[in-house]
Amino acid sequence: MLLYDCGNKEYKNWIICETSFDAQLLGKCESIMALGNGYMGLRSSMEENYTKQTRGLFIAGTFNKFDCYEPSELPNAADVVELEIVLNNEVFSLEKGVIYSYQRSLNLKTGELARHIIWESPSKDKYKLCFKRFVSLDNLHLIGMKVYITPLTGESCIRVTSGINGQMTNSGVQHFHEGEKRIYDQNIMEFIQTTCQSKIDFIFHSGHTWKIDSDKQIPTPRMIISRRKLEMMYDFMIPKGKTLIMEKICTVHTSLDKSYCYKEYSLQDLRDKTLTEFIELNRKGYDLLFNESAKKWKRYWKEVDIKIESKDSFDQLTVRFAQYHLLIMTPAHDSRFGIGAKGLTGEGYKGHTFWDSEIFILPYFTFTNPQIARKLLEYRYHTLNGARKKAIKNGFEGAMYPWESAFTGDEETPEWGAVNILTGEATRILSGLKEQHITCDIAYALWQYYKATQDIDFMKKYGSEILFETASFWAKRVEWDEEKKSYCINDVIGPDEYKEQVNNNAFTNYMAHWNIQTAINHYRECKEKMPQTFKRLNKKLDLERRFKLWNEVVDKIYLPQPRKTDKVIPQDDTYLSKPLIDITKYKNASAMQTILQDYSREQVNNMQVSKQADVVMLLYLLKDKFSKDVKEANWQYYEPKTLHDSSLSLSVHCIVACDINDKNTAYDFFKKAAQIDLGPNMKSSDLGIHAASLGGIWKAIVFGFAGISIEDDKLHINPKIPPLWLKLKLPLKFQGYNMEIEITRDCVQIKNKTKTDYPLEIFIGNDKYLLKEKLRVDLQGVSPQK
Amino acid sequence: MLLYDCGNKEYKNWIICETSFDAQLLGKCESIMALGNGYMGLRSSMEENYTKQTRGLFIAGTFNKFDCYEPSELPNAADVVELEIVLNNEVFSLEKGVIYSYQRSLNLKTGELARHIIWESPSKDKYKLCFKRFVSLDNLHLIGMKVYITPLTGESCIRVTSGINGQMTNSGVQHFHEGEKRIYDQNIMEFIQTTCQSKIDFIFHSGHTWKIDSDKQIPTPRMIISRRKLEMMYDFMIPKGKTLIMEKICTVHTSLDKSYCYKEYSLQDLRDKTLTEFIELNRKGYDLLFNESAKKWKRYWKEVDIKIESKDSFDQLTVRFAQYHLLIMTPAHDSRFGIGAKGLTGEGYKGHTFWDSEIFILPYFTFTNPQIARKLLEYRYHTLNGARKKAIKNGFEGAMYPWESAFTGDEETPEWGAVNILTGEATRILSGLKEQHITCDIAYALWQYYKATQDIDFMKKYGSEILFETASFWAKRVEWDEEKKSYCINDVIGPDEYKEQVNNNAFTNYMAHWNIQTAINHYRECKEKMPQTFKRLNKKLDLERRFKLWNEVVDKIYLPQPRKTDKVIPQDDTYLSKPLIDITKYKNASAMQTILQDYSREQVNNMQVSKQADVVMLLYLLKDKFSKDVKEANWQYYEPKTLHDSSLSLSVHCIVACDINDKNTAYDFFKKAAQIDLGPNMKSSDLGIHAASLGGIWKAIVFGFAGISIEDDKLHINPKIPPLWLKLKLPLKFQGYNMEIEITRDCVQIKNKTKTDYPLEIFIGNDKYLLKEKLRVDLQGVSPQK
Repeated sequence: MLLYDCGNKEYKNWIICETSFDAQLLGKCESIMALGNGYMGLRSSMEENYTKQTRGLFIAGTFNKFDCYEPSELPNAADVVELEIVLNNEVFSLEKGVIYSYQRSLNLKTGELARHIIWESPSKDKYKLCFKRFVSLDNLHLIGMKVYITPLTGESCIRVTSGINGQMTNSGVQHFHEGEKRIYDQNIMEFIQTTCQSKIDFIFHSGHTWKIDSDKQIPTPRMIISRRKLEMMYDFMIPKGKTLIMEKICTVHTSLDKSYCYKEYSLQDLRDKTLTEFIELNRKGYDLLFNESAKKWKRYWKEVDIKIESKDSFDQLTVRFAQYHLLIMTPAHDSRFGIGAKGLTGEGYKGHTFWDSEIFILPYFTFTNPQIARKLLEYRYHTLNGARKKAIKNGFEGAMYPWESAFTGDEETPEWGAVNILTGEATRILSGLKEQHITCDIAYALWQYYKATQDIDFMKKYGSEILFETASFWAKRVEWDEEKKSYCINDVIGPDEYKEQVNNNAFTNYMAHWNIQTAINHYRECKEKMPQTFKRLNKKLDLERRFKLWNEVVDKIYLPQPRKTDKVIPQDDTYLSKPLIDITKYKNASAMQTILQDYSREQVNNMQVSKQADVVMLLYLLKDKFSKDVKEANWQYYEPKTLHDSSLSLSVHCIVACDINDKNTAYDFFKKAAQIDLGPNMKSSDLGIHAASLGGIWKAIVFGFAGISIEDDKLHINPKIPPLWLKLKLPLKFQGYNMEIEITRDCVQIKNKTKTDYPLEIFIGNDKYLLKEKLRVDLQGVSPQK
Repeated sequence: MLLYDCGNKEYKNWIICETSFDAQLLGKCESIMALGNGYMGLRSSMEENYTKQTRGLFIAGTFNKFDCYEPSELPNAADVVELEIVLNNEVFSLEKGVIYSYQRSLNLKTGELARHIIWESPSKDKYKLCFKRFVSLDNLHLIGMKVYITPLTGESCIRVTSGINGQMTNSGVQHFHEGEKRIYDQNIMEFIQTTCQSKIDFIFHSGHTWKIDSDKQIPTPRMIISRRKLEMMYDFMIPKGKTLIMEKICTVHTSLDKSYCYKEYSLQDLRDKTLTEFIELNRKGYDLLFNESAKKWKRYWKEVDIKIESKDSFDQLTVRFAQYHLLIMTPAHDSRFGIGAKGLTGEGYKGHTFWDSEIFILPYFTFTNPQIARKLLEYRYHTLNGARKKAIKNGFEGAMYPWESAFTGDEETPEWGAVNILTGEATRILSGLKEQHITCDIAYALWQYYKATQDIDFMKKYGSEILFETASFWAKRVEWDEEKKSYCINDVIGPDEYKEQVNNNAFTNYMAHWNIQTAINHYRECKEKMPQTFKRLNKKLDLERRFKLWNEVVDKIYLPQPRKTDKVIPQDDTYLSKPLIDITKYKNASAMQTILQDYSREQVNNMQVSKQADVVMLLYLLKDKFSKDVKEANWQYYEPKTLHDSSLSLSVHCIVACDINDKNTAYDFFKKAAQIDLGPNMKSSDLGIHAASLGGIWKAIVFGFAGISIEDDKLHINPKIPPLWLKLKLPLKFQGYNMEIEITRDCVQIKNKTKTDYPLEIFIGNDKYLLKEKLRVDLQGVSPQK
């Protein structure tokens, strides 16, 4: 059972709590309670073993290819969390004996995971156990653990086996060579492993300190070195009522670490340096190290915390949960790495970066921490060569971004997926070939970043080049259709992945058009305002020739128009002519894609059934291109046909519902979006949290309920806060201004926390205001948005 | 708890039985109750999952190298045994609820594993469950399973998930590419995987049939294809008292299968052929298929069963257990494959072949099934090139056999082992470089085979070449020692692996000497009696030159002589001068090498402590070289210093104790040897059964208690049956004679089951007898052996 209201006082709406134990349903809390810091992500599996646990430690960017048949994936690194605890010859396991009390909680405010248990063993010995754990936000390489064991019934002989276990796999796939194992001074374990193909060295250090109550112990462990594994076995005799306290400190470093391997890389150097550092950290101990991390969390929350005064206080926790994960999933320390679709919390999608990153997650950083947003966009610059290769391989030019991206920018989408229930074969996955909108999505996101930050330096160094390269791809990709007298984009998959190999997916066509048009505009801006950049890129990319091509193509791209009868924009050339089916059975199945248990993908392809927002996604991204009528008509047409079988769907529907002023429906979708990870479906997050959905929750609040958007470079605010909410207070960074925006039902107040000589123009409704230090606008007096 | 006396009537002394369940101690029965047929070995893990289980399916000969740092190993193939059984929404697991009755048994006579359980779920529903399983001796590719589930309390909703799981690893090492997965007709699963380096294709087929009581069911399963995995999920509603019966039939084939891939190999052919065959097998069903296998077991036992009438009937079961495993470990179907040190029952020693095969196991086949013995020796012929490469690489000539051998004959000994408790580093394993006696052991075994079978065809094709090549290695390997005026063999490890890098290990020197001397003798025999072979080998090996070298060296090899004072043969140049320590603490620790928890290998190297029989091994192999006095003196000197930390030690001590006529001690060692796998140490067999020890048990009976040996080509019998035994009856094949030998305290009776015109000369004690059809010798009248 999950509870979200156990936080009290300073921790109110900060605690995710599990109040009972179910050995069959461990995946969910392993993911949603995961710890991390963007450098690493650690699934919150229990210390003791269960058959259905999935231990996971993922280090950002450390991709490896198992063989030539499988794409690169983020390897599951050695486990340090496992402890075998034997209490009077009985292995501690909550599947046995009696659980008198159980509570596990993740404190979103401090980043600490804690578990409190009172357990009676099958032989009737009672124990109090407490487990604490954190991944440091202060030292990105650090994992801390602390365990308390108190025998309550009588003296107990306690054996703890603790080690570093490199037998971990990604569902059976081993990414590491055996490695080197070493124990120093019967205390510090060192384990060095190298990934098999990418040849990234990993160095683990781990050590233990022991106390009985406050008395320090120096036990002599039994040491075991076996295959891919080191273990230390400790024995204690603990009297009734006394507490055995173990601290286990671990660090992980890799040869990708910029801060350690900046000059010529040498494994021996890294090993020496990290061992020396480890000894110091191990000496400091859990409490001190945890406090240093908690301070960093405090600083983070001070900057980004959103306050929601809602009659349902779960709304407040929802956004904090999202913001917690948005931080721990993001490798802000290194722009060579992207964000995985499951963050660093699970094997799902192999750690690959999708459009989720730009369309769902990037905006959070663009508007709260633009430095991080810039790094995430730089990742797409670092992988530009992969995108160029893909374009050339497919007969185009410019950059054709991979649908799934890892370290190099090569296409990493796996070829085979789940069963085809008709043929019994694995289904071919076409996204890597056909889901091409990723390229305009990236252009869109970088443009939004540029507009929101005015970061010209970024455009000069990276942004303009990406924008021009993506536009160039589309200009070659479009195909002339003599019948339509237009440039068409045939044989694609749009955002709705239940429609494969369609022609003229509206979303793709509009966004490709936008991509080229924006490149044309920026070409002029660049030529005029950044002549050096222009000169360099013109030389590198033959811009003048390309500019001509863009102009030839852009106005002739086929943009499906709303039907006259009902204003419905055809999702693609054939969607509207396909038969309808009753999808009630599948519609509330929590994104489990249950329809594929009854129909094959081909069959689903030929129905008016959508996996996720597609036209609705278009209505959101290019909101000023469509009238309110058209938006309403399309929302009404498509939503009932949409299963929301992708976690990318609900939050977008929420935002568009806000846009068409249907606050109740919007709130409904917001609540549903929160349920994707936090809801009662205990299987939904087994493979990791839903990164895009968490970004979507922040977006639903900021772009949906707060109604914030950029139009013509200006900030617009059109609040649509839900009936249950009294107040929404959020921090926002825009064009160098650091604001705090407070919205109630009646009024918008904005505080500018930046010292600046120029006031910022802000539109509320249709009216322009100037923000200096503070601005207060009564919503009743505002003329409605056009 | 293990029980060995539960078999009744026709199954008396045929049943290994486990009467209680302990989730912490699963490894032992997984190994000792393993099923197999020499083609494959299947660990007897339970259908349901436990954290400490080790599932294993090993197909003989299918070695693969994970990377260039690890030796070849026998990969753990996909699992077909796992079943998730959900009873009224409760996952079936014996760690929960109440076990009312539990019994698991392996029937050695029929090769069937059965488990009977009455279990009450935590929600108080009672069930009767029965699981049966066999690996066919009739169709080497076949695994059959049958499951019965009866709800006893009320109607029960039963879900069974069953599949083929390729996520298995060897302690984390994945040897297979992802592979191709397919389900035919919602029923037959097909999984094709290829090993990553050796590129061996594996094809699995699996299907289910269902009944409720006797009514056939045709359920519609949910099909799941995921990473390296296929699953079928079946749902049933079973009324109280009715029984759901599932049969699961599986086959495994590989591209190494000679009987399938004799012509040009094509995966598609193999796939078509095996699918067609599978459909037929699946139709036949468990009972019929099991009966076909049981018939083959019956035939085996008819040929090899040894009858022991002992006051302790466990002795009878001990030898049957050994013979059961000796059959299932042996790839009799293909002479390209050897026997692993753990048979096919576990990951231990990576499936590699050691001297265990020739010295401990081969004799069983030499004297009961010479065709199989020949195949095992042919394996050493197939790997001769690897041995030649090793000789050349080390600066010698001829054949220097690898200490650990896999498919090619290349040296496969891993480089690093367990922890050095002093330095905290992994210990360097030197056996691959230094444990050179394997080469004479192979020569010895093939000579014994030749003497016992007179298989001249074998010698012509394979044996002579191996013998000459091994002798040639030794003739180059010996080093002239000016001081000793002898050829020495320095820097070796003898059988006693606690003494590394010693000079003139007595065992090695004597055996090398024997090897060269036997080659010299055989050279003459070969030249005279097999001139074609001689001509061919002379050309190939430059025999005449080598013959000269052998003769130059042979009489000058340093053979450590018994000390005059106490008749003790120095194990090596320094052993006797090393300090003694009190080893009581370590001596009865069930081969767990506990001494290495207190001392490093270097420290142990410098004590008079032996891991296993070394001089005592020599006394056994070259028994006619040493007088009874010398044997006694050395047994008395070395045994107290021997920890028996290798499973190769006890049975040899038993045989030598018989030889020196100490029947009580011999029986004691026999009993201890039986405990290696069948004893109460529940960890001893986790990594697999002890193949050499099982061969040793047979040898202890036949060479020890029955006192059978070959001297000057003649069969000798000097019975030493233990005081508790009334009768020992054993089949024996010798020089084409198929005998049944019956020994009581007073008399030896021999039946000759072969039709032959010539009687066989047999020595009993010092007297010669002639066996025609039958022979009966009263032991009282026999003059004692010299």
